Amino acid sequence: MDNIEALFKPESIAIVGASRTPGKIGHEIVRNLVEYGYRGKIYPVNPYANEILGLKAYPSVSSIPGKVDMVVVVVPADKVPSVIEDAGRKGVKVAVVISSGFKEVGREDLEEEVVRIARKHGMRVLGPNIFGILYTPLRINATFGPTHAIPGSVGFITQSGALGIALMGMTIVEKIGVSAIVSIGNKADIDDADLLNYLREDANTKVVLIYLEGVMDGRRFMEAAQNFTLRKPLIVIKAGKTQAGAKAVASHTGSLAGNVAIYSTLFKETGILEASTVEEAFDWARAFSYLPSYKGGKLIIVTNGGGAGVLATDVLAENNINLEEPPQSLRDKLRPKLPGFASLKNPIDVTGMISNEGYVDAVIETLKNESVGAVLALYCETAVTDPEVIAKELIERIESELGGLQKPLIVALIGGQKSYNAVATLNAKGIPTYPMPERAASATAALITYSKLRESVKLRIDELRGITNA
Amino acid sequence: MDNIEALFKPESIAIVGASRTPGKIGHEIVRNLVEYGYRGKIYPVNPYANEILGLKAYPSVSSIPGKVDMVVVVVPADKVPSVIEDAGRKGVKVAVVISSGFKEVGREDLEEEVVRIARKHGMRVLGPNIFGILYTPLRINATFGPTHAIPGSVGFITQSGALGIALMGMTIVEKIGVSAIVSIGNKADIDDADLLNYLREDANTKVVLIYLEGVMDGRRFMEAAQNFTLRKPLIVIKAGKTQAGAKAVASHTGSLAGNVAIYSTLFKETGILEASTVEEAFDWARAFSYLPSYKGGKLIIVTNGGGAGVLATDVLAENNINLEEPPQSLRDKLRPKLPGFASLKNPIDVTGMISNEGYVDAVIETLKNESVGAVLALYCETAVTDPEVIAKELIERIESELGGLQKPLIVALIGGQKSYNAVATLNAKGIPTYPMPERAASATAALITYSKLRESVKLRIDELRGITNA
Repeated sequence: MDNIEALFKPESIAIVGASRTPGKIGHEIVRNLVEYGYRGKIYPVNPYANEILGLKAYPSVSSIPGKVDMVVVVVPADKVPSVIEDAGRKGVKVAVVISSGFKEVGREDLEEEVVRIARKHGMRVLGPNIFGILYTPLRINATFGPTHAIPGSVGFITQSGALGIALMGMTIVEKIGVSAIVSIGNKADIDDADLLNYLREDANTKVVLIYLEGVMDGRRFMEAAQNFTLRKPLIVIKAGKTQAGAKAVASHTGSLAGNVAIYSTLFKETGILEASTVEEAFDWARAFSYLPSYKGGKLIIVTNGGGAGVLATDVLAENNINLEEPPQSLRDKLRPKLPGFASLKNPIDVTGMISNEGYVDAVIETLKNESVGAVLALYCETAVTDPEVIAKELIERIESELGGLQKPLIVALIGGQKSYNAVATLNAKGIPTYPMPERAASATAALITYSKLRESVKLRIDELRGITNA
Repeated sequence: MDNIEALFKPESIAIVGASRTPGKIGHEIVRNLVEYGYRGKIYPVNPYANEILGLKAYPSVSSIPGKVDMVVVVVPADKVPSVIEDAGRKGVKVAVVISSGFKEVGREDLEEEVVRIARKHGMRVLGPNIFGILYTPLRINATFGPTHAIPGSVGFITQSGALGIALMGMTIVEKIGVSAIVSIGNKADIDDADLLNYLREDANTKVVLIYLEGVMDGRRFMEAAQNFTLRKPLIVIKAGKTQAGAKAVASHTGSLAGNVAIYSTLFKETGILEASTVEEAFDWARAFSYLPSYKGGKLIIVTNGGGAGVLATDVLAENNINLEEPPQSLRDKLRPKLPGFASLKNPIDVTGMISNEGYVDAVIETLKNESVGAVLALYCETAVTDPEVIAKELIERIESELGGLQKPLIVALIGGQKSYNAVATLNAKGIPTYPMPERAASATAALITYSKLRESVKLRIDELRGITNA
């Protein structure tokens, strides 16, 4: 096991600074580890306690009888170096340094000392100034955030602590399943590139989302990102995109937000999808985590509301995705089933007069057509339909007639309480669904854009190889 | 009472095509009128019924004994002209023509006939091809949409039927209070300009939001819009912004979406706020409907999460709103109350270590400062705070110490279920609150942008007057 792997798959974890007092960080991390169901060994370290949450406590890492893969450190900053020294001697592979009071308050010296000691022992360091790490496949919740994260395949890396922990809570309410949440903080040692290299190979992670303020080594980041995007989509929220934002970053983490204009270009070149908001980033992540990848073929919009179709068309066009006419075979199939004034262009407008069954039928027929590569289904709650029935029938027919989704289907259900319920139902069944047409269209655009970016990254790499070989 | 006023304040309404069958449009409209609590006279018109929902039915409009201000027409398209003729003779002021089957399916002739007959009698026509009209101050729900719209001060005009009715449901779930919802459809007679001219003077409406695909008479629209924005904010979702979107508009309502590039410029010149999505438009409308207007002074961000502050700063900068340093008097007041490493730049970062009380205190002190014109409060749910407590204390202290909001306060609460609950609590008390930092920042930008646009529209009008007078 290499040391980064120990961050995700430790067989034993010691918490240095573990506390008996509920509400204290050193207590909450032990509690989260226990309650979320980690099966490895948990060693609370506290010289003044015999037992914490029913677990035997030890006075130091070196006094623990068994092997320790990971230490989580929550002692005050000036005590961290000696803990790292003790853990290093014990042969610990990775230290998760929760404690703050380092570079972010001008103590670069202390931070460098921690890294120097760790390196001496061949140990890696996550943090400092973080809320911890979560890895759902092994039920590891070594954070002081919410306990019951929802397992899934989104990996989330966050440079911001308070925002990251808040968004961890948001994923639970929005039922966005995660594989890992990593608070990366000051990045004294382990950085985004390390994590991307690991998560690229992690079978439990389908897509990674990074909240990024800045990187130290741009070349290293871009290289890791490029290797990553050849395999899996990478979504980045770049904070500090404007000059004013970059100034705010400097007074927040002390990172250089970097040249404002250059990021977007570099992102595109390495295949990174840049989201303009947190909401958009998680909307995209949801779609990537649920769906098979887009492999070409026509994108068809099916809608029962012309207006929703127009709004989606605008979003797609703004992302340079043009809608082609539906295949004739599909038009022939749908024409007899639809009202006379339905439009069989793209968007296919089945009209507000359509029934539940008629709407579901149109979506299923479109999914079945061989020339169709992806479907964006928009639905407006009308008096003659019931979104909960539509969700149920859609799920059943996708299962029984298609054996599950073989190509991307993205849904928007716009309406009242029943529509909101149906959005949750579809999401729970792995069909990415949103309450607004533009959000569904934006997720659709991200899927298609990723497949385009990936191709162009591949081409460029092949070209570079050609030049090198010539 | 002029005829447009009769659309919002009819003393009696006849529904032609009223039905006894639940689920039918002609039934649902009568039911909505009754159940939402309209106090005027309701006359179902149906030659084959004696009574509908306990109301006496009449065979025709002309056979109704009393005066009729408004008729709602739900008979098939080819029967509409004779109904209009009958209503016109009766002295009806306005006809709300729900029926479809006119211009949108190539029957311009039938639509022109309807308008011609109405004009002969001095009657105005809303529609055809609409879902009706709602005006909450008089409890008029003459739509076949959801029954229990939430009273408030947002006026919503929609050119799209299915999308509009779906969004009517959305406003109920999202607790966005509306004064009026008007489905405007084919705009055969009454258009956006007529409605803007009326709602400008309507004391129950603070802000208007239009879903717009296209206008027939651009000059007329812009003139009405400019007069409107001098008094109240006007938010427009322009569908068909791209060439592909404009093509989709043509096959939807048959409207010309118009020159794609020219709209945004004209919008700015007339003081219109163009929202990029439906979600953004309603986010803005919520803020305008709750808050006093922005009257200048510094905009200060208060945050307990640096990352949220950076994201908000970016959004503001993208909208050309720059953050100035907080006034020295505010820094002096806050410094002793905050952790040593808190940042007193703008954003003011009170840090993730702040308590409930400390956070609320910082927001209240900032609101109290005389040089401050608006506050954007960002909060990330941390282990040491409780968003529900923060919401409650914020509400109490705004009431007790400030006598309510005297300047705009916009809030974002980011986190898990408690944060979502607190978002709803604050919104219910008239403090516009969002679950994402960028959404709150965008609403803040809209408030400030409106005040700027309004000033520049005023200036331009004064200049034009100067030229005319010279």
